[in-house]
Amino acid sequence: MTTPNGAKKPFVLNAFTMNAVSHVAYGLWRHPEDQHYRHTDLDYWQELGRLLDGSGFDNLFIADALGLLDTYGGNAGASLAAGVQSPLTDPLLIASGIAAVTESLGITITVSTTYEHPWLLSRKFTTLDHATEGRIGWNLVTSQLESAARNLGYDTQVDHDLRYDRADEFLEVAYKLWLSSWEDGAVLRDKGSAAHPEGMFTDPAKVHPIDHEGRFFTVPGPYIAEPSPQRVPVLMQAGGSARGVEFAARHAEVIFVVGADDAAIRRNIAKVKALAEAEGRGPDAISFITSVAIVTGETDAEAEAKLAEYQRHFDFDGAVVHYAASTNIDFSDYGPETPIRYLDTASGRGLLGMFAKEETGRDWTLRDALAPAGGLGRSRLFVGSGAKVAAELDRWANETGLDGFNILHVVSPGSYADVITHVVPELRKLGRIRAPRDPGTSLRARLFGQESARPRADHPAHRLAAIPAQAKPAKEFQKDDAQ
Amino acid sequence: MTTPNGAKKPFVLNAFTMNAVSHVAYGLWRHPEDQHYRHTDLDYWQELGRLLDGSGFDNLFIADALGLLDTYGGNAGASLAAGVQSPLTDPLLIASGIAAVTESLGITITVSTTYEHPWLLSRKFTTLDHATEGRIGWNLVTSQLESAARNLGYDTQVDHDLRYDRADEFLEVAYKLWLSSWEDGAVLRDKGSAAHPEGMFTDPAKVHPIDHEGRFFTVPGPYIAEPSPQRVPVLMQAGGSARGVEFAARHAEVIFVVGADDAAIRRNIAKVKALAEAEGRGPDAISFITSVAIVTGETDAEAEAKLAEYQRHFDFDGAVVHYAASTNIDFSDYGPETPIRYLDTASGRGLLGMFAKEETGRDWTLRDALAPAGGLGRSRLFVGSGAKVAAELDRWANETGLDGFNILHVVSPGSYADVITHVVPELRKLGRIRAPRDPGTSLRARLFGQESARPRADHPAHRLAAIPAQAKPAKEFQKDDAQ
Repeated sequence: MTTPNGAKKPFVLNAFTMNAVSHVAYGLWRHPEDQHYRHTDLDYWQELGRLLDGSGFDNLFIADALGLLDTYGGNAGASLAAGVQSPLTDPLLIASGIAAVTESLGITITVSTTYEHPWLLSRKFTTLDHATEGRIGWNLVTSQLESAARNLGYDTQVDHDLRYDRADEFLEVAYKLWLSSWEDGAVLRDKGSAAHPEGMFTDPAKVHPIDHEGRFFTVPGPYIAEPSPQRVPVLMQAGGSARGVEFAARHAEVIFVVGADDAAIRRNIAKVKALAEAEGRGPDAISFITSVAIVTGETDAEAEAKLAEYQRHFDFDGAVVHYAASTNIDFSDYGPETPIRYLDTASGRGLLGMFAKEETGRDWTLRDALAPAGGLGRSRLFVGSGAKVAAELDRWANETGLDGFNILHVVSPGSYADVITHVVPELRKLGRIRAPRDPGTSLRARLFGQESARPRADHPAHRLAAIPAQAKPAKEFQKDDAQ
Repeated sequence: MTTPNGAKKPFVLNAFTMNAVSHVAYGLWRHPEDQHYRHTDLDYWQELGRLLDGSGFDNLFIADALGLLDTYGGNAGASLAAGVQSPLTDPLLIASGIAAVTESLGITITVSTTYEHPWLLSRKFTTLDHATEGRIGWNLVTSQLESAARNLGYDTQVDHDLRYDRADEFLEVAYKLWLSSWEDGAVLRDKGSAAHPEGMFTDPAKVHPIDHEGRFFTVPGPYIAEPSPQRVPVLMQAGGSARGVEFAARHAEVIFVVGADDAAIRRNIAKVKALAEAEGRGPDAISFITSVAIVTGETDAEAEAKLAEYQRHFDFDGAVVHYAASTNIDFSDYGPETPIRYLDTASGRGLLGMFAKEETGRDWTLRDALAPAGGLGRSRLFVGSGAKVAAELDRWANETGLDGFNILHVVSPGSYADVITHVVPELRKLGRIRAPRDPGTSLRARLFGQESARPRADHPAHRLAAIPAQAKPAKEFQKDDAQ
C-alpha cells in the first residue's frame, strides 16, 4: 500500500506469541536457544519487552485460550506432553509488568468476551491503558474451545453466532462506559479554588449513567474509572466465519486475515472492506495483517542453515494436535498424507475449507497445510538475508493489500532479535518502518498515523456509545431508577 | 504474642491502600505532599513498591470495590466530588508492574468471588504467583455494594449468606485446581532423554481432572496452568457477619478484625479461633490484624504538629459518604452528632452494631465513630515519635492478641516513609520486625516463619482439594465424561 503522495505506508509489525510453552512453534521449545518455555517468569517477558521496545516492532501481541487442547485423541495428553499451548497462564496479568520496563511498545492482549462481564473487563482495559500511558490493545475473541466451555459451566460451547451477538452488545456497553459516561474535563483534581473552596476531584455533573438495558446486559452505570489516554484499547480481531467477519468489520481496527494463497487473502480483505464500508467506515479504516515466520541471518545461506537446524526440532504431531482443536476434528487416526478434501469439513469452522480443493484448485494433505515449504507450521515462512526477506514482505504486501504482519517466533527471543538485526534495517530503507515517535504517543496514534489517541470519527464506537436520552447526570441519579 | 522461647513474634506489617484517589484518608488527596491521587500512573506504584521493598513492611495490601459509593444522597455525586474510593481502577492489573521492581515485598490484592469464575480466577492468581516468584496474596471478599450488583446484572445484591456459600465452593474448586490437578514433578521440561527421546514438557500421567460437580460450579479440569511456587495465594479475609466469620475461620491465614474497643477485638479474635479449631486448624494457624493510622516524626511534638496539619485537610463528609455505603444507610439527613444507637442497625450489616451502646456501654455519635481522637478516620490513630508509637503498638498487640497491622496512609508515600524512618527501627528493637530473608522466599514462608511455600498441613485446603476417586489421569480422560 502506498500513501497518496506515493510513499509506502509503514507496516504494522507485531511480535506474536502466547503465554504458554509453545504458541505455534511446535517442538521448538526443545531448541537450545529458545527461552520461551520460561513464560511463567516475569524476567523473561521483561527481556522480551526491552528487546522489542523502540526496535521497529510496534506491538507485542499475546494470544490466549481458556482451555487445554483436548480434541486429539479425546484428551489433553498429547498437548501436555508436547507443550502445545500448555501450560498456559494469563497474558492480561503480565501486561503491566512488561509496561514497567518499556516506553513505546504497544501491548495487545487477547481476552474473550464470552466469559467476562463488560462492567469488569472495561475497567481492566482502562487500568492497563493508564498503566501503559495509552499503549494497550485488545485482541477480541469469543472463545472456541469446548474444553473452556465445559470448565466454565456449559455442557458444550455456546452457539457460535450467539457468542458474536453477545460480543456485539458487550462492546456497545464498553463503548458507553469508555466514551460517554465521563465527559472530557470531568476530572478536575481541584485541591481548592474559588469555584470549589473545599476542592473537587471529579465534577459529578460531567459523569453520566449509561442506562444500558439490552438482551444480554443491564448496566446502569455511571462508569467507575477515570477515562484513560486512548479511552478505547486498539481493537484487533481475527474473524473467519461469516458472523465473525461481520463483527470484525464493525469493530476491529486491525484485522488478522488468513488465506491459503494470495488470491484468497485478497478476497478476504475485499470482503471485510465492503462490510466495513456498509458500517460507514472509510476505505483505510482497517489495517490487515497476517502471521508470518521469518528465519534470517547475514546471508541467505546462513538463514537456510538456521532453518535446517530449526526443522530438526519441529514437531509435526504438535501441529496436528493444535489443528485438531482448532477444527474440532480428532486427527489421531489420520496420517500426515491424508488429503484434506476427504475429511468432514462441516465442523471444521472454516479452517479446513480454506485448504479444500474447491477453494484452491489443488489437493492439500495435512502435511501441506500444517507444515508447508520448510515445515515450521501453518504460517507463511520467509527465509533469507534481511534484504531478501524485506523485499519479499514488501512485494507480498503490494500483491495482497496486507498492511502488516504478526511475526511469530521460531525461537524466542532469538527470532525477534534476528528480525531486528537483519530485516528491520532493510524494511526501513523501503519505507516500511514507522519513524520513532515520542514515548507519550498512544498505540493508536502510532499505528494509524493520527493525532488523536481515540478511535477515528468513522468508528462505530462513537455511534454505539450514545446513551439514552433519559439518562441523567450522576448527581441526580436515583438508586431506584436502575432497579 | 510471644513465641515458645519467650521472644516476641514479628508483626505482620501491611501497607494498606486502594487503587483509587482516596481509600480511607478522606480529603487528604488535597494535601500538598500526597501523591496517591496519581493512582492511575504505574510510576507511582513503582515508587511505592521500591520504598516498601525490604523496608520492614512485609506486604502491600490493595483494597478494591466494584461499584461507586452511591448510598449517600442516593447517587454517586458526593463520592465523586470528594474522590472517596473514586475513580477506582483494578488493583489486580497493576500487580505485575509492582512485582517488576520489587524483590521481596508481598503483594496482596482484593478480588471478589461473587462475580468471577474459579476456572478463570485460579489462573490469574497462578500467573501472578509465578510473576512474583511466590509473593502473591488474595484478600477474599464477596462484594457488598448494591451499585456493583446492579451493574453486573442483578436487581439487588445477591443474598449475603448465599454469597458466602458460593465463595466456599469457589475456593473448593480453586484448591482442587491449585493443589490436586497437577502433581509435583508433572512438569518435566525434558528436551530429549532416554526416557523421552522426543522430549516431554508435561507428563500427562501426573495431570488429573478434578471432576468437580457442585451446587454452583461444574469444573471437570484438568487445570490449565503449571503450579506456582505457593500454589495457593496467601489467603486474607475480613468477615464481620456470623457467616463471614465462619468463612474466614475456615479459609483465611490472615484475618482483619475490627472492634470498637480492646475487649471487642479480643472477643472477635477468640470467636474466630474457636471456629478455626473446629475446622481442625491449630491455635496459631491464623494471624490477626487490624488497620491503624500512624502519624510520626523525630519527636512527639513534631508528630503532633504534623497531625494538626493533616487534620486541616481531613474531610468528615467523605468519611460519612463511605460509611453510608458500608452500612447501606443514607446518612445525608443526619448530622455528625447523631447518636448511633438511634439509627436503624438492621440493615447496617454489623458495622453499626459495633458502636451501639449495648455493645460498648457508652453513647457513640457518628463523629465519635468516624473520626475519633484526632479525626483522621475510623481506624485507631497512633501519634508520636517512633519509640512512642512502637511501644504503643507493642502494648496494644499484647493486650488484644493482634499479630500485626494494616497501616493506612494519611498521605502517600509520605506516611509509609515516616513509618519506615521512625517506627520500624524501634519495632525492630522490640523484636517485632522479621529478619531479612532471601529474595526467593515466598510471602507465606516469610509471614508464618515456615519452610514450605504452601498452606500449612492443618489448612482445610488440603482436605477440600481431594478429588473424587473416579477421576482419571488426563491421558485417559474422555471428553464425554465431563458432559
